[in-house]
Amino acid sequence: MLLILNLIGTFVFGLSGAMLAVRKRLDLFGVLVLAAATALGGGITRDILLGRTPPATLGDWRYLTVAACAGLVVFVEYRRVAHWSNLVQVFDAAGLGLFTVTGTSTALNAGLGLMPAALLGMLTGVGGGALRDVLAREVPLVLRGEIYALASLLGALIVIAAASASVLGTPAEIIAASATFVFRMVSLWRDWNLPIARPHEHPSALSPPS
Amino acid sequence: MLLILNLIGTFVFGLSGAMLAVRKRLDLFGVLVLAAATALGGGITRDILLGRTPPATLGDWRYLTVAACAGLVVFVEYRRVAHWSNLVQVFDAAGLGLFTVTGTSTALNAGLGLMPAALLGMLTGVGGGALRDVLAREVPLVLRGEIYALASLLGALIVIAAASASVLGTPAEIIAASATFVFRMVSLWRDWNLPIARPHEHPSALSPPS
Amino acid sequence: MLLILNLIGTFVFGLSGAMLAVRKRLDLFGVLVLAAATALGGGITRDILLGRTPPATLGDWRYLTVAACAGLVVFVEYRRVAHWSNLVQVFDAAGLGLFTVTGTSTALNAGLGLMPAALLGMLTGVGGGALRDVLAREVPLVLRGEIYALASLLGALIVIAAASASVLGTPAEIIAASATFVFRMVSLWRDWNLPIARPHEHPSALSPPS
Repeated sequence: MLLILNLIGTFVFGLSGAMLAVRKRLDLFGVLVLAAATALGGGITRDILLGRTPPATLGDWRYLTVAACAGLVVFVEYRRVAHWSNLVQVFDAAGLGLFTVTGTSTALNAGLGLMPAALLGMLTGVGGGALRDVLAREVPLVLRGEIYALASLLGALIVIAAASASVLGTPAEIIAASATFVFRMVSLWRDWNLPIARPHEHPSALSPPS
Repeated sequence: MLLILNLIGTFVFGLSGAMLAVRKRLDLFGVLVLAAATALGGGITRDILLGRTPPATLGDWRYLTVAACAGLVVFVEYRRVAHWSNLVQVFDAAGLGLFTVTGTSTALNAGLGLMPAALLGMLTGVGGGALRDVLAREVPLVLRGEIYALASLLGALIVIAAASASVLGTPAEIIAASATFVFRMVSLWRDWNLPIARPHEHPSALSPPS
Repeated sequence: MLLILNLIGTFVFGLSGAMLAVRKRLDLFGVLVLAAATALGGGITRDILLGRTPPATLGDWRYLTVAACAGLVVFVEYRRVAHWSNLVQVFDAAGLGLFTVTGTSTALNAGLGLMPAALLGMLTGVGGGALRDVLAREVPLVLRGEIYALASLLGALIVIAAASASVLGTPAEIIAASATFVFRMVSLWRDWNLPIARPHEHPSALSPPS
């Protein structure tokens, strides 16, 4: 059951990576790589930080296959997938919830403290998308004004709250993943954004000339 | 013998990193860093993913020295090296073949399955160049329309085919590296490219405003 | 004492990350992430390369808290911090010296050779800033024309010179960190720069079309 949910999360994250790759005019290989980087990047980064090498998703052919399939689907049927992009956002929110919760639980099981575990959970949830954006030369979307990482943080906090109250386990994880999912969907629907500081300064003061 | 081939691969990968750095007007240190990142990045990433820390090339002064020399040569003699850029492409194709094969074999020896081992082999071959492009703020060349990663994949597949037929060893590795080299050179000569999907869509739908 | 110096270094590196984030119009979360990536990125990369997982700064809540505080301070009081930017540069030079020296010593204690240890020390000092710039889609400042990495290298070389003369210990480390600090401050004051190679070539020869 958890495996199937994880594979669905892998697939929809792969879709989002492949769609950006097509929009950036990358070739077939670029589409597959960006799909795999988005789908597997968060979990691999978490495993490296925890010293769990080789990372679990690299040793399991199903994750690689599912990510590659997502890339192929987008490459062949970009217009149809783009047409369903609202549906993709729903699945993406579900993937965010799932990856955040499995990441936080994995970190807790590896003996990390509560705060580092929540951080690694967020990194698992949002890391793949950040890697996607860096490779495609975008400022990571997760850093820009949407309730995305905050929804991930909510799920991670519920998992560590449950863990510190010794009520670890599947029910708490389902609640946490659902909270992330609902918070993300509502913020999309109501167009909520995080505040942005306005510098009101010479914008080139410290940035390199470009 | 393998060491000498690996050092040649390190040197030519270093040349390609340093040449991009000079073109980007980076300073002397930037040229050296981009040379080292290109030359050693793929192998270091592979070693981290396999849990082989500290990475082999960091502990061996010869790799660092060779990469730094490549950077210095380009910094001092940029015009002459650029004049020989066709020759650099030949060596680069040879380096791609070598690094792919040693990466795949290292991953197989570390107990990885066939598909993950092929993936790590490709990552060893193309990872340094991708790191070079991210640091220089380019969309990685390997994701854009040339037969580069596909040539690497061919070599990795030959190594894992040989391994699954229990004919591991130097002869199979030489054939695999040569196949990557020839495929890459022919694709350059005949100007072969991978297909690119045309989105025909509102290009700003999901990309962040810029 | 060392802990306090390290936390000061973490704070000022966090300030520099957060200031770039505000200038790039990232949201509150983006400011916090860029502060943490700048402050902790160098040390985490070093720990991954040394196989010390999970990285020390992830397991210690004080580093995360200090980095987050730096982000919050900049988010709320950007103008005031920007006003003191000369002071921030002084602290940043101090952080560079501290992180370089602790990174080099950590690598030596982990059994690395002299040259790899110096490299890891530099990576600890300048890696956070490079990660900051990649995430914010800038060519890393450390690669562009200022005496920054060279000051870090000076400190690392002093540490390994002391180590190879068997005079390891706090006095040598203080001298090394001070040398980095002074070299960096003098180069800022006198406007020293590293040389840049002028290609005088077709600038688009090898770079991808953009």
